[in-house]
Amino acid sequence: MVNPNLLNMDEDFLYHINIKVDKDTNDIKKQFGDIKFVCLGGTKSRMAALAEHLREVLQIDQNKELIDLGESGHRYAVYKVGPVLCCSHGIGMASMSVLLHELIKLVKYAECIDPVFMRIGTCGGLGVPPGTVVVTKDAYNGYLRNEHQIAVLGENIVRPAYFDSSVNSKIIKCHESTDNFELVIGNTLGTDCFYEGQGRLDGALCNYTLQDKMSFLKKCYELGIKNIEMEATMFSSLALATGIKAADICVTILNRLNGDQVIVTMAEKVEFEKRPFIVVGRYIKQNLQSN
Amino acid sequence: MVNPNLLNMDEDFLYHINIKVDKDTNDIKKQFGDIKFVCLGGTKSRMAALAEHLREVLQIDQNKELIDLGESGHRYAVYKVGPVLCCSHGIGMASMSVLLHELIKLVKYAECIDPVFMRIGTCGGLGVPPGTVVVTKDAYNGYLRNEHQIAVLGENIVRPAYFDSSVNSKIIKCHESTDNFELVIGNTLGTDCFYEGQGRLDGALCNYTLQDKMSFLKKCYELGIKNIEMEATMFSSLALATGIKAADICVTILNRLNGDQVIVTMAEKVEFEKRPFIVVGRYIKQNLQSN
Repeated sequence: MVNPNLLNMDEDFLYHINIKVDKDTNDIKKQFGDIKFVCLGGTKSRMAALAEHLREVLQIDQNKELIDLGESGHRYAVYKVGPVLCCSHGIGMASMSVLLHELIKLVKYAECIDPVFMRIGTCGGLGVPPGTVVVTKDAYNGYLRNEHQIAVLGENIVRPAYFDSSVNSKIIKCHESTDNFELVIGNTLGTDCFYEGQGRLDGALCNYTLQDKMSFLKKCYELGIKNIEMEATMFSSLALATGIKAADICVTILNRLNGDQVIVTMAEKVEFEKRPFIVVGRYIKQNLQSN
Repeated sequence: MVNPNLLNMDEDFLYHINIKVDKDTNDIKKQFGDIKFVCLGGTKSRMAALAEHLREVLQIDQNKELIDLGESGHRYAVYKVGPVLCCSHGIGMASMSVLLHELIKLVKYAECIDPVFMRIGTCGGLGVPPGTVVVTKDAYNGYLRNEHQIAVLGENIVRPAYFDSSVNSKIIKCHESTDNFELVIGNTLGTDCFYEGQGRLDGALCNYTLQDKMSFLKKCYELGIKNIEMEATMFSSLALATGIKAADICVTILNRLNGDQVIVTMAEKVEFEKRPFIVVGRYIKQNLQSN
């Protein structure tokens, strides 16, 4: 346990997923001790779709009703498919960090063996066609620095922000040449704002020009940034600091060099969202077989 | 319109609430032009409860099915009760800012007259008993500065962060001496992290001692901070920058000077959550009558 205070607590209430951990019993270990993969994505509907996909791939619990274990917390959806949790994290670092703290505590209390956390998201692309799957190497913050900044007790704490290279290598190998989409490894910009933070011209507020925006996106491109989302620096840094292996696998739904508005059709978007599912599904299946 | 780029767009897709604005028609004005109040809160269930409360207070649409206008966007719930929108914003500045940009554009496109935005949230309290309603004056960020920092095009932009004093005065007057709860005005700490960002000892990670935490909370207390949540600096600064009147009215569900874990019962929590509804319901009713 990275935080020694947790050892001294008789019980821990994981408030936002409404799970009570009572250390006098083995209940948490019984319910979650088999977890090997924790998948995270923005919306409840996408995580339910991922859970259904993994049920098919792993041939587990098919045709059974999908139960949201986090429902009574009213914040995050939590589905369990055998050794995989699929959880919705909302939008942004703050929202995801609340869940991540509680899930990391959960897998530690349950004594899960070397669980891998993966974010399976949607994002803006940079110089890659919409529908490209991007696996993140280094995460950059809104100041274009490869680090995560967090205010702790009023002080600015700076932490490293990169993903696990061994997990990345294995995930990349799960992309097949016959897949109808590209998969690339690249760096990711993680921002705290979808509009101004990502240089969009179409927010409620915009105090810069098209030229300023394009010059910013060019700088990003030169840093090897291939996609833009809102979680990468927090996710990678908290995983590193707590000894959790993590990966960020997102599908781009637009190319920001061509515009700001999301204009894919709903049908295209649904197909795009399945692309990371396919790759991650293969990765999970292979790694369960090799255990 | 604060962002001149929006004037040149024939249509705008408010992607995360899945609302298309077609400027060739009057549809948006017809559907949303009567909005005078936009209420925002973390969860969908709480905002549905607020919508039901306001239906009763304003005697509008009672017994009709409540429709979530944002449902197809899969991110935020949007309920309309006559001249009031009730929207869920998730957790944290980033999540709320996505919605806020889109709602501010919505009320501007719909030509709503002087709409007031109010966050009706839950929070941690500082030196006030659980169940106290706190109306925010000044918002402080995680560095204990009364400002909001945002990375725009790679640069650090600092903006003022305080709420509308005229709206606050009116809201405070809606608290009645016979109410079974206290209402106070005070400053609010808005952080980007529920655990480390708020000095909790029970996160997955904690690199400080109980003494460090208490010294941090004491500093907060000396700044007049009465509650801690995760949205105040972004909300107030974006409202100020776009000319929107805003208020933040939250109920405390624990006193952080006494601990970190949320231990109120579900029944207490539900009763606490209704307290800001009561005050805001009276405020909305009075202001609609005086128009």
